[in-house]
Amino acid sequence: MSDFFTPVSGFDLPRFAGVPTFMRLPHVTLDDPRLAEVQIGLIGAPWDGGTTNRPGPRHGPRQLRDLSTMIRAQNGATGVRPFERVNCADLGDVPPNPADVMDSLQRMTTFYNRVRAAGIRPLTAGGDHLCTLPILRALAADRPLGMIHFDSHTDLFHSYFGGTMYTHGTPFRRAMEEGLLDPARVCMIGIRGTTYDTEDRDFADAVGIRVIPVEEFHARGPEDVMAEARSIAGDGETYVSYDIDFIDPAFAPGTGTPEVGGPNSYQALQVVRGLDGVRIVGADLVEVSPPFDPSGGTAFLGVSVMFELLCVMATSP
Amino acid sequence: MSDFFTPVSGFDLPRFAGVPTFMRLPHVTLDDPRLAEVQIGLIGAPWDGGTTNRPGPRHGPRQLRDLSTMIRAQNGATGVRPFERVNCADLGDVPPNPADVMDSLQRMTTFYNRVRAAGIRPLTAGGDHLCTLPILRALAADRPLGMIHFDSHTDLFHSYFGGTMYTHGTPFRRAMEEGLLDPARVCMIGIRGTTYDTEDRDFADAVGIRVIPVEEFHARGPEDVMAEARSIAGDGETYVSYDIDFIDPAFAPGTGTPEVGGPNSYQALQVVRGLDGVRIVGADLVEVSPPFDPSGGTAFLGVSVMFELLCVMATSP
Amino acid sequence: MSDFFTPVSGFDLPRFAGVPTFMRLPHVTLDDPRLAEVQIGLIGAPWDGGTTNRPGPRHGPRQLRDLSTMIRAQNGATGVRPFERVNCADLGDVPPNPADVMDSLQRMTTFYNRVRAAGIRPLTAGGDHLCTLPILRALAADRPLGMIHFDSHTDLFHSYFGGTMYTHGTPFRRAMEEGLLDPARVCMIGIRGTTYDTEDRDFADAVGIRVIPVEEFHARGPEDVMAEARSIAGDGETYVSYDIDFIDPAFAPGTGTPEVGGPNSYQALQVVRGLDGVRIVGADLVEVSPPFDPSGGTAFLGVSVMFELLCVMATSP
Amino acid sequence: MSDFFTPVSGFDLPRFAGVPTFMRLPHVTLDDPRLAEVQIGLIGAPWDGGTTNRPGPRHGPRQLRDLSTMIRAQNGATGVRPFERVNCADLGDVPPNPADVMDSLQRMTTFYNRVRAAGIRPLTAGGDHLCTLPILRALAADRPLGMIHFDSHTDLFHSYFGGTMYTHGTPFRRAMEEGLLDPARVCMIGIRGTTYDTEDRDFADAVGIRVIPVEEFHARGPEDVMAEARSIAGDGETYVSYDIDFIDPAFAPGTGTPEVGGPNSYQALQVVRGLDGVRIVGADLVEVSPPFDPSGGTAFLGVSVMFELLCVMATSP
Amino acid sequence: MSDFFTPVSGFDLPRFAGVPTFMRLPHVTLDDPRLAEVQIGLIGAPWDGGTTNRPGPRHGPRQLRDLSTMIRAQNGATGVRPFERVNCADLGDVPPNPADVMDSLQRMTTFYNRVRAAGIRPLTAGGDHLCTLPILRALAADRPLGMIHFDSHTDLFHSYFGGTMYTHGTPFRRAMEEGLLDPARVCMIGIRGTTYDTEDRDFADAVGIRVIPVEEFHARGPEDVMAEARSIAGDGETYVSYDIDFIDPAFAPGTGTPEVGGPNSYQALQVVRGLDGVRIVGADLVEVSPPFDPSGGTAFLGVSVMFELLCVMATSP
Amino acid sequence: MSDFFTPVSGFDLPRFAGVPTFMRLPHVTLDDPRLAEVQIGLIGAPWDGGTTNRPGPRHGPRQLRDLSTMIRAQNGATGVRPFERVNCADLGDVPPNPADVMDSLQRMTTFYNRVRAAGIRPLTAGGDHLCTLPILRALAADRPLGMIHFDSHTDLFHSYFGGTMYTHGTPFRRAMEEGLLDPARVCMIGIRGTTYDTEDRDFADAVGIRVIPVEEFHARGPEDVMAEARSIAGDGETYVSYDIDFIDPAFAPGTGTPEVGGPNSYQALQVVRGLDGVRIVGADLVEVSPPFDPSGGTAFLGVSVMFELLCVMATSP
Repeated sequence: MSDFFTPVSGFDLPRFAGVPTFMRLPHVTLDDPRLAEVQIGLIGAPWDGGTTNRPGPRHGPRQLRDLSTMIRAQNGATGVRPFERVNCADLGDVPPNPADVMDSLQRMTTFYNRVRAAGIRPLTAGGDHLCTLPILRALAADRPLGMIHFDSHTDLFHSYFGGTMYTHGTPFRRAMEEGLLDPARVCMIGIRGTTYDTEDRDFADAVGIRVIPVEEFHARGPEDVMAEARSIAGDGETYVSYDIDFIDPAFAPGTGTPEVGGPNSYQALQVVRGLDGVRIVGADLVEVSPPFDPSGGTAFLGVSVMFELLCVMATSP
Repeated sequence: MSDFFTPVSGFDLPRFAGVPTFMRLPHVTLDDPRLAEVQIGLIGAPWDGGTTNRPGPRHGPRQLRDLSTMIRAQNGATGVRPFERVNCADLGDVPPNPADVMDSLQRMTTFYNRVRAAGIRPLTAGGDHLCTLPILRALAADRPLGMIHFDSHTDLFHSYFGGTMYTHGTPFRRAMEEGLLDPARVCMIGIRGTTYDTEDRDFADAVGIRVIPVEEFHARGPEDVMAEARSIAGDGETYVSYDIDFIDPAFAPGTGTPEVGGPNSYQALQVVRGLDGVRIVGADLVEVSPPFDPSGGTAFLGVSVMFELLCVMATSP
Repeated sequence: MSDFFTPVSGFDLPRFAGVPTFMRLPHVTLDDPRLAEVQIGLIGAPWDGGTTNRPGPRHGPRQLRDLSTMIRAQNGATGVRPFERVNCADLGDVPPNPADVMDSLQRMTTFYNRVRAAGIRPLTAGGDHLCTLPILRALAADRPLGMIHFDSHTDLFHSYFGGTMYTHGTPFRRAMEEGLLDPARVCMIGIRGTTYDTEDRDFADAVGIRVIPVEEFHARGPEDVMAEARSIAGDGETYVSYDIDFIDPAFAPGTGTPEVGGPNSYQALQVVRGLDGVRIVGADLVEVSPPFDPSGGTAFLGVSVMFELLCVMATSP
Repeated sequence: MSDFFTPVSGFDLPRFAGVPTFMRLPHVTLDDPRLAEVQIGLIGAPWDGGTTNRPGPRHGPRQLRDLSTMIRAQNGATGVRPFERVNCADLGDVPPNPADVMDSLQRMTTFYNRVRAAGIRPLTAGGDHLCTLPILRALAADRPLGMIHFDSHTDLFHSYFGGTMYTHGTPFRRAMEEGLLDPARVCMIGIRGTTYDTEDRDFADAVGIRVIPVEEFHARGPEDVMAEARSIAGDGETYVSYDIDFIDPAFAPGTGTPEVGGPNSYQALQVVRGLDGVRIVGADLVEVSPPFDPSGGTAFLGVSVMFELLCVMATSP
Repeated sequence: MSDFFTPVSGFDLPRFAGVPTFMRLPHVTLDDPRLAEVQIGLIGAPWDGGTTNRPGPRHGPRQLRDLSTMIRAQNGATGVRPFERVNCADLGDVPPNPADVMDSLQRMTTFYNRVRAAGIRPLTAGGDHLCTLPILRALAADRPLGMIHFDSHTDLFHSYFGGTMYTHGTPFRRAMEEGLLDPARVCMIGIRGTTYDTEDRDFADAVGIRVIPVEEFHARGPEDVMAEARSIAGDGETYVSYDIDFIDPAFAPGTGTPEVGGPNSYQALQVVRGLDGVRIVGADLVEVSPPFDPSGGTAFLGVSVMFELLCVMATSP
Repeated sequence: MSDFFTPVSGFDLPRFAGVPTFMRLPHVTLDDPRLAEVQIGLIGAPWDGGTTNRPGPRHGPRQLRDLSTMIRAQNGATGVRPFERVNCADLGDVPPNPADVMDSLQRMTTFYNRVRAAGIRPLTAGGDHLCTLPILRALAADRPLGMIHFDSHTDLFHSYFGGTMYTHGTPFRRAMEEGLLDPARVCMIGIRGTTYDTEDRDFADAVGIRVIPVEEFHARGPEDVMAEARSIAGDGETYVSYDIDFIDPAFAPGTGTPEVGGPNSYQALQVVRGLDGVRIVGADLVEVSPPFDPSGGTAFLGVSVMFELLCVMATSP
């Protein structure tokens, strides 16, 4: 493993020091000649134009980078040392247009097309959940993907406010319509909270998406649930989308649409470890909203989840 | 169901918009001609004159109304749609006298007498726990009620500071003395924390109130405990009093007398769902103290509990 | 003066109690039969779709209503009792579409057209500064208005992000292009901070808008500056737009694009008192962003400014 | 000067270390044999039972003691070294009854009677402003005092909520009725904010209390205003009462009834220095409410004011 | 039991009142004649000179004392009334030198030598974890001790930053080198999080220290784990060191090096109760960092753990 | 001017996006071949080992970089466009040793020797004020410098805690002893607050350092004071050291040793503009402590001051 792709150690430079890149990795822009060596790219998507409730995830990548300097080299639970297995780099941020939804979606797809063209698997820090749609447009352009989705909401709604099609509550409805996801290989875990109606759940049932509500999650436990999730994903190419509001708001208050009664932080890690063996082509951690948690605790839990995602991506078949 | 009693949907008006009433229900004052149609009234009791420790619950109803605009129409776990089953309205706030305990108690009883006279079951947002006493004086004026009480304290103490009889640590001692509660039908769940002595517990034992400490709660689990609670309440008329400090302070920091080692947010909802079938004549959620949680997380958990209470009240026999 | 339009007194109901409307005024919707009696309408514009930097003003009206319950009946400095001079009411919130800029602009103009048609002068609580554009489209539909504008930015930029025309940095450029403002009767006060270029200032100079930078403001003092502002506005119809970031961020931290070195809170009030005699057809207070000041201090200063605006509107010729 | 009465130096023990007494003075209870040596006693009055709006000053003494450990031995502006001039000690807290207003008033008067009997001049940290009434009952039991009063409110109201006589808005009305103050020697400085009516000001005018509103304060400046205040107090015995809300809320947000447009922190100190030469028999700093400023900035400004008060008391004729 | 050693009751003096000593115990300095009567001494170690990451534990004792006034007389779960069993006192703070690591270590050992010489068992509130080293140097000067250690880190590292031997990550490596601990009687519980390498764990394995990672803790449960810990400690003299970061950061955010996925607050108490019967010669609770939790929730949990430690020390054989 | 040294514009990439370097400048490490082109280097000194009171400035550079992305290209008051005048770059952070004072001082001098050798003038973001000593050791190695010093403390003390020579209260005493400063060309502005004694001021008087206390500053005004300061500095090489606690804590709460009664934010900028014409060889902004202001307001004011410093450095003779 090249020294270039080795994160700076806290034994050399204290973790509060230095320009903060994701996990203290080198910053390699899309125009950098070393891009060709990168295998997994950590990317910020600082955009929340799809947010219908409390905004703020546009600030997520900044705070996640800050807190990610607390992450070290080895997974304490699994022993995986991802930075020695694959070349990882911080590819910087997608440039959004905060005042134009459609332009932002286009900018993101363009960015991820370049990432995919470079043979890099992306691990994205959002941004709101609408960011996942343009990522899927790039990664699933030529065939549908499976998806394992951790969230308290299905994000399968048809539209909002009398016909607005692109919000953070609709990305997977659009992805289904565009053929980006194979519903038989999609599993949504942790769904809960009050609802207006069951339109999203009816759609999931109709197309064959498996939804595991949090009541079932608590009753069965993370290991059993993840065994089913792995079975649904099978050995096909799979995307992993992790909304921080999957986790209970006591552990992750910094998000816009929390729902109480969720998993704790240990379970939040366990479910990612349960992805071991899944063929992951990309992943994201979205909806971290720093204005609602200036302490950074949510972001620290977020980057801890990202590190777990990175470990299963690094060892993914 | 009349449109009048239907809460405003977040698909029509975003949840951060509009004058905040409880759960976006219509505001119907006691003088409003439509009062006669109301079946369950959501009421604020912005008073903390009985607080002997850290004050603040007088601000509870304001923050709870604010966060309650995040609540939608249907219970995600049980499927109940309370607003379609019963006419619900925000009846506004009881007018307290912040500088006079006895006057405030009188004002509250007067208010709840009118509510009861209108045939409305009250769901109250406190306020400190002394607020429950004047509510019981109205609701139990003519016969004792059963009570299921979630709390980390029994609130059964005799007096404070050398003879002060009316504090938030004494409401149920007074209620017992006044014949408002049937001790054989009272169950207190979640009791914990350090104590000065066992005077409250000795009293409970002497009169036959069932106290389930948190150690027993954790050992048996919410479902088993609630089966016993339902059995204690039986099929008689029962009041439900829910002190937010029942929940662990990591989930509900915004309260004045927290005790560590409590239930988590999922259990906080489970116990209310476990009230299914109880004949509930009124309920409250008290001791939310916004100055100790400006983030609103405690209030959001509080209104989530209130929505669960509303659901079991709406389907109550 | 009718009792109906008299705010609830804190001597009757404590200020932390009750459903919070603006300044504890009656809530009169656009469909309410009493709308015809209203002379000044307090309106919330919970929308920040034009924000290019830190979001949050969509939450402004909610927090401003909350803190406005601290406002009493009489201006301590000028003695004006506005609620006895004109019928004031809370007209509720404009319904925005958080995920669609153009739709939101249209919804707002529609709303303010109805307000104007009812003969009501609006006092708006934003919302970001782009909200002022649709208001002007309604109020200035038939002739250009003068404007006195308190801000640290001119909001006169042409476009952002390669051609995005509608952001909170462009409303007055658009208003000028649409003929809604008479540049000879426009005065901008408090401008400061770093800039990318001088395109906005060059435009102001070219069309004849008077810009008073904060250095001049500090050197001359509020009274001298406001004498000039009144002279610029003359006796024609004038709109007043007050961006909370006019005030130094130590006094008003809850905003998205602060600039240090601004006026203090006393000067913040003085400048509004200096509008005495101006013929005000409408006013706004925008860019209060609660996520950046959960304490509510910014909102309290904001509603204090709104009350001063209400006083000069109530006595306006 | 005895070593016993010398505060611990931060050069010996860091200022964040040690059990926090006021200004790191010795803790001398009323039963301590060394009480007889004390000349100025710093006392906490942890009570806010008179608060009609946002509570919290009961926590003031605790936070003020904490922050007071930042205070050193010498006044940087005047050179006074108070601890070398007079024996100062922390006399502990008055024991209040949080749930009984009248009992608390009695407990306080009893405590201050003992302080006065010991020949000690008290410097009190509140508590809300109603605390000043029982202090005056002890200190002015045998003749009326003069008073210099810094505040944004007169606290001269007759009653609240339909006849409640004892609130933090009424102490000086009661003190006048009880003959504790000589109105010709009373001066109130910094009055501002919205009002319900002018009942308090009319009373002041009728009895001859001089009220200097903040507009006059800003126009004349602290030095001129304090010259008048000294003249009003004359050479008679005078009490000084300093409500932290005299200061602008940007400097002192931690209080329950803030009013914007107040003096800055430098002026907050200047006015106390302007008391030089006044014959001060006691002083207080009230209405610091820690729940509204957990950062402690308000308390630090509060103890800085208390140190200035101590300096003018130490050099008082 | 002497009244002198009885904490002040909240029924006599409200818990927010009074000069805050640990658990409202008498303050007995090392020079106080009553020192000879003290059996367990509560001591503050306000020092964080060994901190390599986020600082702040120097402020721990102050905040822990503040929150400890919420603790009452009796353990709600076990019924133990420690203050009636042993004479407890607040011995004040060790005087550290914030700018000199070696001097501070020496000052602390000197202090604890005096404590040990007085026959007092210390219960220390840190400070960072390096504070435990000088404590062990005093307590284990003449023979190695067993240790039960709750933490998310082993603190067994050799050195930092190219040879720095004394940091909060190295105390137990130094203690092992100095013969202060018997590795066969040391058990470390809760270890988790990312790591740079396994040098600490390899050392533990080499010398025979038992490390129980959090994954094992969650799988086995607190009771089973504590049975093993008691067995390891045996009936020899044992020190208990409790790093607040043992607990999940949702429950204890106020610490410098949090690791997600830890025990909840109930388990945090359970493990201490599981020390029943261990022969405890001293204990500490370290790494509470108030700047990262101004709300005090972490400190309240910290003192709740300290009270549990006190209970098992009071009943220790 | 090369595009390489042009900061990223917020019109191209929103200011909340991207890896945060100082003012969005390129990150050029000391080993980078482009170092030779750099004229002014922005450097972080993330170290607070000299702090004797409340720690935290080690986190300063991270938060200052974050907030510095709000800075644009042109000074709004003076019109200077610094990035077009001189090549500026972010040189990264000095690597400190958080647990060893003397090692850290050596590391810093080594770093700044390289910076000076490269012909780069440093603009440093601290860190505590002891950081200035190793900087001066590099910059003034061969002749003493003049210094203009903004602060509320002189930092001229001899030693702390019985002989500790290197703390953030002693850097300029050491610098004087080491011949790094020419006392006749040193001016300290804004000194205030309580003191233990006058040892520092006596030293200043003895060696001829000019100290302007804040009382004089407020009486004369910034312009007059800065005229004197320029006269003292003369046309010799001068260092500028700016402690954020120069500014009143209402504007800059995020610092460890605040003193009330300081300049406001406008004056904070004015004094830097008053350095126009001084021959500045280096400058720093120190003592920003993020844990005491998570909101970032202090850091934003800090980077606003840094930008003003950069402007006067860019135009310095």
